[in-house]
Parts: sequence; C-alpha cells; structure tokens
Amino acid sequence: MHTTLQLQKIIIDAIPKIVYPQHPANLYEPIRYIMNLGGKRLRPVMVLMATELFSDDLNQSLEVALAIETFHNFTLVHDDIMDNAPLRRGQKTVHEKWGVNNAILSGDVMMVESNKHLSKVDISVLKPVLDTFNATAQGVCEGQQLDMEFEQRNDVSIEEYIEMIRLKTAVLLGGAMKLGAIVGGASAADADLLYQFGENVGVAFQLQDDILDVYGNPEKFGKQVGGDIISNKKTYLHLKTLALAQSDEIAVLKNDIENQVEKVNQVTNIYNKYQIKELATSEMDKYLTIAQQALQKLSIPDEKKIQFRILIQEILERER
Amino acid sequence: MHTTLQLQKIIIDAIPKIVYPQHPANLYEPIRYIMNLGGKRLRPVMVLMATELFSDDLNQSLEVALAIETFHNFTLVHDDIMDNAPLRRGQKTVHEKWGVNNAILSGDVMMVESNKHLSKVDISVLKPVLDTFNATAQGVCEGQQLDMEFEQRNDVSIEEYIEMIRLKTAVLLGGAMKLGAIVGGASAADADLLYQFGENVGVAFQLQDDILDVYGNPEKFGKQVGGDIISNKKTYLHLKTLALAQSDEIAVLKNDIENQVEKVNQVTNIYNKYQIKELATSEMDKYLTIAQQALQKLSIPDEKKIQFRILIQEILERER
Repeated sequence: MHTTLQLQKIIIDAIPKIVYPQHPANLYEPIRYIMNLGGKRLRPVMVLMATELFSDDLNQSLEVALAIETFHNFTLVHDDIMDNAPLRRGQKTVHEKWGVNNAILSGDVMMVESNKHLSKVDISVLKPVLDTFNATAQGVCEGQQLDMEFEQRNDVSIEEYIEMIRLKTAVLLGGAMKLGAIVGGASAADADLLYQFGENVGVAFQLQDDILDVYGNPEKFGKQVGGDIISNKKTYLHLKTLALAQSDEIAVLKNDIENQVEKVNQVTNIYNKYQIKELATSEMDKYLTIAQQALQKLSIPDEKKIQFRILIQEILERER
Repeated sequence: MHTTLQLQKIIIDAIPKIVYPQHPANLYEPIRYIMNLGGKRLRPVMVLMATELFSDDLNQSLEVALAIETFHNFTLVHDDIMDNAPLRRGQKTVHEKWGVNNAILSGDVMMVESNKHLSKVDISVLKPVLDTFNATAQGVCEGQQLDMEFEQRNDVSIEEYIEMIRLKTAVLLGGAMKLGAIVGGASAADADLLYQFGENVGVAFQLQDDILDVYGNPEKFGKQVGGDIISNKKTYLHLKTLALAQSDEIAVLKNDIENQVEKVNQVTNIYNKYQIKELATSEMDKYLTIAQQALQKLSIPDEKKIQFRILIQEILERER
C-alpha cells in the first residue's frame, strides 16, 4: 500500500504523459493546459486509495483515476465559462485564453477523453464502471444546473442547498471511491459503502468550505476571508441565518454594502449571534459520522482503513 | 428486413419514449425539445440498416441508434451556440430559448445520455462499440474546431476542406454504420467496410450540399439559393474557384456586395465560367465510387445491399 503522498505522485507523474492528438492544436492545447494547472488531485487519489483496499494492481485504477480527473477538469472548463471566471488556480481560465467557443469544444473533447480512459478497464468490470461513471457525471451536471438556478432564486431551502452540494461536489468523490473499489475487485456491497463514504465526506468537505470562507485563518486561507459574504453567496451559513435571524439582520446579509470590510464584520457578527459556525460544524459532523459508519461496515481489516481516517482528519484540519 | 421508411418510423416512435429525469426541469427540458424537433433521422436509421445486414434483432441496435441521434443533437446544441444561430429546423435554438449557460450544460448531459444508451449493449460487443463511438465523437469535435478555424483563415486548401467535412460530417455517418454492423455481429472486416461506405457517402453528401446551395431547385430547396455565396462561405465551390480564377474574379467572391441577388448572379457566372459545378460533381462522384466499392466488398449477399444503393440514389436525387 502507498501513502496518500505516494498516490498523489503517481497521478502527478501520469498526467503529463497522457497523449493527446497534435491537431487541431487549438482543440488539444487547452486540455494540456488545464490538466497541468496543478491542484491536489484529490479525486484521482481517492480512486487509487479505494482500489488499494482490495488489490495491489493499480494499472486499471490509474486509467479510471485519469478519467475522473479529466472529467473534473472538463467541468471546471465549462463551469468557468458559465461563471464568467477570469482565473483558475491563479492562471487565466481556458475561455479567457482561447475564447468561449474553443473552451466549449475543448471541454466536449475532454468528456470523450474521459470515456477513452474508462474504456481501457478490463471487460469484466467495464459495465459497472460505465454505469457508475455515467451516473456520477449526470449528477455533477445536475448539481451545476441547481447551483446556477439558486443564484436567481430567493427561496432556496437548506435541504435544497445540501442536495445541490451533494450533486455538484459530493457525488464525484463518491463515484471516484466506488470506481476505485470496482476495479479493485470489491464486492458490490463494499463498493456501495465506499460510495457512501466518499459522498458524505464530500458534503462535509463543502460545508467546511463554507465555514472556512468566513472563519478560516486569513494567513493560511490564501484568499480574502469573507468572499462569500461580500458576494451574498447562498452558503449553508447564509441560508441557516435567513431561517433564524430578524428582518433587519436579513437585510444586512442580502444588501450590497459598499464597504466590504464593514459588510464582512456586520454579517460575521450576526452569524456569531446565532452561533452559525457551531450549527454548520454540527451539520458537517453529521455527514462525517455517516461517512465513518460506512467505513466501519467495510468488510476489510481495520488497519487498511487507516488512510481513510487520516483523509478525514486532514480535511478537518485544513485551513484551505 | 425493413424498408428505410419503416426504420425511420422505429426511430421516430422511440425518441419520445426516452425517459429523462424530471429534475432539474431546465436541464432536461431542452433535451426533450431538441430531440423532438424532427429531422430525417438519417444517422440512427443508418445504424439500424447496418445491423439488419447481419441480424434480425434490432433491440441493441436501437440503443446505439439513440446514442448516435442524441450525440448528433448534442453537437447541434453546442454548434448553434458557437455559430450564434437563432433558429434550428425553423424553431428557436436551445440557447435562444434557455440561455447559453443552460445550453452548454444540457448539451453536456446529452453526451452522458448518449453513453448511457451505449452502455446497454451486450458485454460481448461493448468494448468495440465504445472504441468506435469515442473515435467518432472525437472526430466530430475536431471537425467543428477546424470549421471554426477556417472561418478566420484565408489560406484554406481544398485538401483541408475535405478533411474538415470528413471529420465534421462524414465520420459520424461512418461511425453509425460501423456501430450498427458491430452490434449486428459483423466481422471486423465488414464493420470497417461499412465505416468506409458511410464516411465516403458522408463526404459526397456534404459536397452535394455545397452544390445544391448554388444550383438547387429554388422551389424544392426550402431556403434562399446562394446563401453560401452571400456569406462568402468557404465551400468546395468557393475554394476551387479561388484556385482557378483571376484576381478580379476572386475579389468578387470575397467581397461583401450590398445587392445580394447581384452577388449571387456574379459569383454563379464565375462558377459557370470555370465549370465549378461539374468539377464539384466529379469530386462528389469520386467519393461515391469509393463508397460503392466498399459496399461491393461486403461479404453479404448482393440482394441485401439494395437498400444501400437506394440510399445513395436518394441522396443523389435530393434537392434538399
């Protein structure tokens, strides 16, 4: 078994070696660009981790991991168009660099490239691999659709928000785990448990993102604390406060205040009054508990599960 | 064996019965909309036709046919965004009706839906089906990229143009034929011959499109004759003329002339002077001959090939 860092290195080494056609250059250059922008490679590492619970052979798993990473980057390219985002990991987004049309089309080809990676798995697992991947991909698209729709709506419930982050973020972590398990030869029951583990970790991960955006350590956070508050983003903290606060406080959350520091301070004070950080943390813990229960039920020796416990710890301790 | 019309009816009946999720409604409604806008359903019919050369069982073939039709409509949704097209088959395009972001995302899900159809084929043919589909999808994206790039270029050669229409239009017809053959149980050699048939018919089909845009019967043509001339589109006729004509004539082709009727007349006269219609027809015949040779080599009784000959005849006789 490898450590998480070793698995990350396997991915980081493999990505620049993926061969794309040379022509048309403007179709494939954006793919090389986005795939090599870096990142923690969390999703493909989760594929390999899940496989290693059941098998020492990572050859097939690596193809699935690259499929997942390619798919994830495809969603980033298209999401960045939809969000009109100029930067991704500190670099120009694909549509900023190559134009929107080119970014749409390069994204489309990335979806094909994902499927090409997947089609390399052994025929004995090909069908469940495809079914899991397609369900995952569909969920991620549904999540992005809900996220876009929520921006235009004023009546988003907390249940709807959790469902959105489940689809947009968590099903891909669940799918990565399940796919890794399948190619590792896991039973259907174990593969489903790993799906549950990944999905619930994913929801917790996103809730922690919401918390860190307000309460993260500014020195380690890497970007402006309170960004979500300034943009009136409908995070868990925002929506929970809407359900608890008084109308004048709600107005502070929803209004655009010119002084950004003042806005962040005012909203944070309201959050504190209603103990929103604690409520969000308790919600996050709920999903981590479900994840841990799924892990517990896995029919493998406890010592093999340790890296998954470490993963949860690392997520909990991160400051972004 | 069914007639082409019967096969078309199988497709027309099957499309409204495809079940998409109900939510998010704005993600799936555009898919139902574009899939039910009509059209000749040429590509899925070709899948079924190819299968029937080898098998009477059309169940698997229908899934592949629906995958091909869904993929084709996905490319229409994204291409219409890139081309800024307001209308498709006389109705509003998806991005006009639902907005660009929604159209990008619904298109993305259509790609997943295509793969879901494909994954239903028997495990014994799943791998070659995926490989053929992925190669086809990749080619179509490459063709669209070249098409976009050619609009900005002034040095497109005829060879490049043929390669572009081969990728953008013809590989999908070849892929449809090959996929139908594979699920019908054809040998690899026969599947490849049907690919060649479909691809070369596809190139001929597109060349005839170019010819009909100028020389089609205005009463049967359904849209303005000379549309390509008015928009200075780099068709085979246009590019061939650039290679033969004098500089003052080339200027007429390339310049925007306010009087559209005058422009069409002037350019048509230049085309006539250089016998461009005959040259284009001869080029088209070249590809039809290759298609017929591939058909000839197929290891099936001659009487089974008759519908394919009829298909070629119908294409030759169409006025759009």
